[in-house]
Amino acid sequence: MSKFLNDNLKGLEAYTPGEQPRDKKYIKLNTNESPYPPSPEVVEAVSASEVVDLRLYSDPLCKILKEKLAIRYGVNYENVFVSNGSDESLNFYFMAFCSKEKSVVFPEISYGFYKVFAELYGISYETIPLKADFSIDVSDYIGINKNIVIANPNAPTGLALSLPDIEEIVKSNPENIVLIDEAYVDFGAESAVSLTKKYDNLLVVQTFSKSRSLAGARLGYAIGNAEIIADLEKIKYSTNPYNINRLTLVAGAAAIDSDSYFADNCKRIMETREYTEKELTKLGFYCIPSCSNFIFAKRDTISGEDLYLKLKEKGVLVRHFSTPSICEFNRITIGTQEEMETFIEKVKECLV
Amino acid sequence: MSKFLNDNLKGLEAYTPGEQPRDKKYIKLNTNESPYPPSPEVVEAVSASEVVDLRLYSDPLCKILKEKLAIRYGVNYENVFVSNGSDESLNFYFMAFCSKEKSVVFPEISYGFYKVFAELYGISYETIPLKADFSIDVSDYIGINKNIVIANPNAPTGLALSLPDIEEIVKSNPENIVLIDEAYVDFGAESAVSLTKKYDNLLVVQTFSKSRSLAGARLGYAIGNAEIIADLEKIKYSTNPYNINRLTLVAGAAAIDSDSYFADNCKRIMETREYTEKELTKLGFYCIPSCSNFIFAKRDTISGEDLYLKLKEKGVLVRHFSTPSICEFNRITIGTQEEMETFIEKVKECLV
Repeated sequence: MSKFLNDNLKGLEAYTPGEQPRDKKYIKLNTNESPYPPSPEVVEAVSASEVVDLRLYSDPLCKILKEKLAIRYGVNYENVFVSNGSDESLNFYFMAFCSKEKSVVFPEISYGFYKVFAELYGISYETIPLKADFSIDVSDYIGINKNIVIANPNAPTGLALSLPDIEEIVKSNPENIVLIDEAYVDFGAESAVSLTKKYDNLLVVQTFSKSRSLAGARLGYAIGNAEIIADLEKIKYSTNPYNINRLTLVAGAAAIDSDSYFADNCKRIMETREYTEKELTKLGFYCIPSCSNFIFAKRDTISGEDLYLKLKEKGVLVRHFSTPSICEFNRITIGTQEEMETFIEKVKECLV
Repeated sequence: MSKFLNDNLKGLEAYTPGEQPRDKKYIKLNTNESPYPPSPEVVEAVSASEVVDLRLYSDPLCKILKEKLAIRYGVNYENVFVSNGSDESLNFYFMAFCSKEKSVVFPEISYGFYKVFAELYGISYETIPLKADFSIDVSDYIGINKNIVIANPNAPTGLALSLPDIEEIVKSNPENIVLIDEAYVDFGAESAVSLTKKYDNLLVVQTFSKSRSLAGARLGYAIGNAEIIADLEKIKYSTNPYNINRLTLVAGAAAIDSDSYFADNCKRIMETREYTEKELTKLGFYCIPSCSNFIFAKRDTISGEDLYLKLKEKGVLVRHFSTPSICEFNRITIGTQEEMETFIEKVKECLV
């Protein structure tokens, strides 16, 4: 830390992404990436001629991609914001709508970044504990007159709220924006996008990183009322107008065009998830029922950290969090069927 | 604007990027892009196998690229920060080191984004007028005990400060960070990177957008003391840890490897600049002597706006700013020799 850093940032604890070790080749089940490649259309879209065009700035309006997203989700062009990963949409939400005076709440156990954004901008925030079964207690969020952020499905639990539950939360907090972070929605939960037409205080954030196999392209989006989307655009044009590079724009557009390819992948991942859950249960694990591309699981006779370390030694990376209430668990991304069969074998070895 | 937007952002005026009209094919001399494509090595680096790997997150450390930049500029790995365009480096500088209490100054006529960042974060700022000849008066920045941002060469004038002048500014403000924005440095100015080894309060920002033909890849970097670089990393990990996508990382690394290709392009652009300046002068224009890939020029008998509009009608886009002190000028990006010959022909037509 330099002596020049602003005082308010001196105590800030940044987000820690999942590890990316390069010491050997791992079966990588730790950062919720898709085990399947992007569609052939995406690969083709990023052509040599597109690379040559990199000399020119990308379209700051992201027009073509926005139009495709609007059609895909049955909303208007003005309802779509495109960002450098969904993290950027989240970042701009915190910047634009939350403050010291306008506080925000989110579940105590959820995506660890929400807290970082709140602390970065000196925003008043409150975390709400989950129920004993790790589910969200909807009544905690009804009519609280605060900004609300909920990951649905939640991470790292994988549990989802129903659409009526989300509607009740949105409806009962009309003076604040409810952000539903749907990074994992395509693996079995119901999207709240349809509700954005009915409520002006709902912002739905999604990503190309998981179900669309484009984590490394950095592409996310937000859907909501035209006025709040315009506010997000204002933040973008005040920080980084050309936030998306040209190749990601064409890759994203091609991904929308190959929707059924990705839907098939999601189906396959959900099948592999059922398999993995069943096998883990057979081995004595408790798995929280997941609507996402990961499983959150624990077993009484082995600590979460112990299993994580043993698996790592055997070449399988899963994600372990040291937060006391969840430190007995590991979050296991669903890989290919083959990878998960190997994973189960390795787990068996760890239990011997 | 929604009713939810934070009060402090309600009056914010975002940055306006140069226009990107799609109504017809223009000779595009308005956003300082390179007229030359990226090197063959860059085109090759963005291969189908890289696109397939987009399913995986990019390296948040940007390790390979940082190592190459460190070698290229004769600094250590810890002295390099990599960003999503140089705008992101600038953004993080304002966030990290400037505040209501720690004010920042920059020239009145310079890159328009500095003011936007300052207003976005509620930072106290002051703009210092240029001299009558549009040059920066170094004495205005000596020992002022404030953060300082200077584009060198400056935009849109193209004028550069000497290295001793910059050193004097840096040396005389030891309690504040001087940021030198070197977006255009490769076209004839001297870089201050060497001074970062001597002074802990200097941050040099550069970009791949201009001299390296990668505007559409969104890649910039900052070089400075390890402690201030660590502060920028902290902001990155608190907003968007995976700020650079995989394809841009490989394109950037390949661009560093083909340094001489880009040096040749810069030489060619400087030669075309001399030609353009000479021709414009023959036509009665006053050109500010430029160290960049653009010329800032005016002619008494035609208003800046008038020339801009007439050229646009004839299929040539240049950049006009309506700020009163420079509204008689146009900023003309240097294209290929052929493009500039056409440009000169079109200017002649406009003067008839």
